Amino acid sequence: MSDGLGEIAVGLAAVARGFHARGWLLGTSGNLSAVVQREPLRMAMSPSGIDKGELQAEQVLTIDEVARVVGQDGGKPSDESLLHIRIVKERGAGAVLHTHSVWNTILSDVFAADGGIKIEGYEMLKGLQGVRTHEHAEWVPIVENSQDMASLADTIGEALNKHKDAHGFLLRRHGLYSWGDNLAQAKRHIEILEFLLETIGRTLRICVQVI
Amino acid sequence: MSDGLGEIAVGLAAVARGFHARGWLLGTSGNLSAVVQREPLRMAMSPSGIDKGELQAEQVLTIDEVARVVGQDGGKPSDESLLHIRIVKERGAGAVLHTHSVWNTILSDVFAADGGIKIEGYEMLKGLQGVRTHEHAEWVPIVENSQDMASLADTIGEALNKHKDAHGFLLRRHGLYSWGDNLAQAKRHIEILEFLLETIGRTLRICVQVI
Amino acid sequence: MSDGLGEIAVGLAAVARGFHARGWLLGTSGNLSAVVQREPLRMAMSPSGIDKGELQAEQVLTIDEVARVVGQDGGKPSDESLLHIRIVKERGAGAVLHTHSVWNTILSDVFAADGGIKIEGYEMLKGLQGVRTHEHAEWVPIVENSQDMASLADTIGEALNKHKDAHGFLLRRHGLYSWGDNLAQAKRHIEILEFLLETIGRTLRICVQVI
Amino acid sequence: MSDGLGEIAVGLAAVARGFHARGWLLGTSGNLSAVVQREPLRMAMSPSGIDKGELQAEQVLTIDEVARVVGQDGGKPSDESLLHIRIVKERGAGAVLHTHSVWNTILSDVFAADGGIKIEGYEMLKGLQGVRTHEHAEWVPIVENSQDMASLADTIGEALNKHKDAHGFLLRRHGLYSWGDNLAQAKRHIEILEFLLETIGRTLRICVQVI
Repeated sequence: MSDGLGEIAVGLAAVARGFHARGWLLGTSGNLSAVVQREPLRMAMSPSGIDKGELQAEQVLTIDEVARVVGQDGGKPSDESLLHIRIVKERGAGAVLHTHSVWNTILSDVFAADGGIKIEGYEMLKGLQGVRTHEHAEWVPIVENSQDMASLADTIGEALNKHKDAHGFLLRRHGLYSWGDNLAQAKRHIEILEFLLETIGRTLRICVQVI
Repeated sequence: MSDGLGEIAVGLAAVARGFHARGWLLGTSGNLSAVVQREPLRMAMSPSGIDKGELQAEQVLTIDEVARVVGQDGGKPSDESLLHIRIVKERGAGAVLHTHSVWNTILSDVFAADGGIKIEGYEMLKGLQGVRTHEHAEWVPIVENSQDMASLADTIGEALNKHKDAHGFLLRRHGLYSWGDNLAQAKRHIEILEFLLETIGRTLRICVQVI
Repeated sequence: MSDGLGEIAVGLAAVARGFHARGWLLGTSGNLSAVVQREPLRMAMSPSGIDKGELQAEQVLTIDEVARVVGQDGGKPSDESLLHIRIVKERGAGAVLHTHSVWNTILSDVFAADGGIKIEGYEMLKGLQGVRTHEHAEWVPIVENSQDMASLADTIGEALNKHKDAHGFLLRRHGLYSWGDNLAQAKRHIEILEFLLETIGRTLRICVQVI
Repeated sequence: MSDGLGEIAVGLAAVARGFHARGWLLGTSGNLSAVVQREPLRMAMSPSGIDKGELQAEQVLTIDEVARVVGQDGGKPSDESLLHIRIVKERGAGAVLHTHSVWNTILSDVFAADGGIKIEGYEMLKGLQGVRTHEHAEWVPIVENSQDMASLADTIGEALNKHKDAHGFLLRRHGLYSWGDNLAQAKRHIEILEFLLETIGRTLRICVQVI
């Protein structure tokens, strides 16, 4: 852990362990980041391939604006670091969180043909920054999954530009991204969106004919 | 934290953390209160916008009968403080708890056209104060959600007057309110009602056509 | 806590807190007991109306063969103590546990007309004492619920006599009872039966028309 | 606990307690092992009939290549030790884990007629060692359950040979086996496969007509 990371890394590790306990980061999936400084950009980033249920602050890496590790030997940042960096730039976010839950995975697929999910009429929407009433309609865009991170970052950049008010997006059959001005707000957004996706998923009569 | 709050605030914070772990207070949703003294009314109230999974006794506020913070600088009580105060006055409650669970959200919508949910024939009903047999029929009123707290408090006051025996009510697509003579009883009522709502929700063949 | 209870009470309280965390003892529901001595009968029994998530060994009571508290002032044993005592006498059990889970509540109702649930062909059945193969067919009797404990104890006694091999039974819309030679075995039986009931419940296409 | 086991046994016990908390090892079900040395083979193995939620490193046994306890008095290794040994030999695995979850039990039965489950198109697949893209198709073979461990070990050996790329398999109505080069990798594989099986299970319109 390099200088300046201290408290931020402690916070990221705590969120990681809590989300892992809820089953949102199983099998080393998902990743977490927070901005340490903006000029030049330095971000705290969870390492690749680590059990999030046991993540310690000391394992958190510092990366620059092209996702290179800074000031440390060893350690490999999450493969999806470029997506975090893009979100930070597009949204001015202070923290970005990415979860793999059972419900976000299912809904990202069930609604893929619609290009997104409209969530409307729930009080919980007020937990999203700037939303003042349950009558708000939140559009959660769904982006096709890809292993080409540079290309995926561009696609996400376009989706963020097209949907200026979105507080998060789904990668199809992959997971949820959300962010906030700081780690607490990003955590709040993930909890709100995970709650709403589960609520919608359980309300649906899921009848996709898999068998 | 002002004088007199001590033990009450510790209790509220412990309940908050426990309910957050169960997923009933995600994303800073929900709120908790308890009466500190009645004349003039002083209530311990959870602050607005705080992660309930990390709520500490020191963050709990004291409010008066019009929801103003008393004896402290800073801190903003929950937006729904007026609803807590109304319940305390209508029911003589010593504590009021409000949760946002996936199942209470779903059922508050599925049964909205009926104006409430009748729960009957379950042993768990005996956990509601004054209920002596599973043959009891509990009516859980459902009130339309609103962002006008003064108006919503009046609507709730009417519902409480109309349903004198109700131990809780639902706000549509919003959440559950319950209360008790003290915090332990209010916690028991929430656990009982959440259990029964989940049981009914899982028993239903949910076939609302959302897609 | 009276003499002789020590270690047994510590064990009961630990099981209570663990089962409460799983949602099997919400709202002060359920109860737990273990035999301290047989002649004359002395049993450790969870008190009535206590939050099982906070049960401490010091709160565990000692009762005699007619469910009177022995050697302590104050404290009220669970209303269902007579059922525990009957099970101890009929089965020679060393510990009796009673849980209220969402799935055991649902299945106790869905299968009530059959008088019980046949569970067959699951490896988990081998966790029931004396069962050596998954081909075993376990019959879990369902008994109608009642508030007359003396009468209910007799009904249960008859069911236990009729189904000599049963490792547990359900009270309709109420909960599950199981037992064992000692607390560890009783805990194992509850976990096995809760697992199997949830598995069966999730496999069913629940289509009871409640709405 | 014999010499050489130390750290391995601590790790196995920690994984056991964590998986028990998730409900994957209820009722003393499931078992865990890790290779201590290969020539001659010595494996750390969870004992039979122990509550995995309370497993301590001191209870972990050492067994040889025919599942005899080595260097200790007392203690009985899991009945399924022969299956662990076979997997170690066939795959060169360093650790083998076996869980009983509700979802793996259900899916092992629903897809039994197909002889396995094809899992394809999920990002989470990349958590399986050697998988580089969500476009990977993982085949999870399903083997009929049996109480004849020697025979079952042979059947599993054949399945592993036939499906060289499989990272795990299901025993019908019994549970999931997975493995890895070391304990961390085996834990990751179990988490990935449990996640994917739950996702598929919840996506299905389960309509097996049990009633």
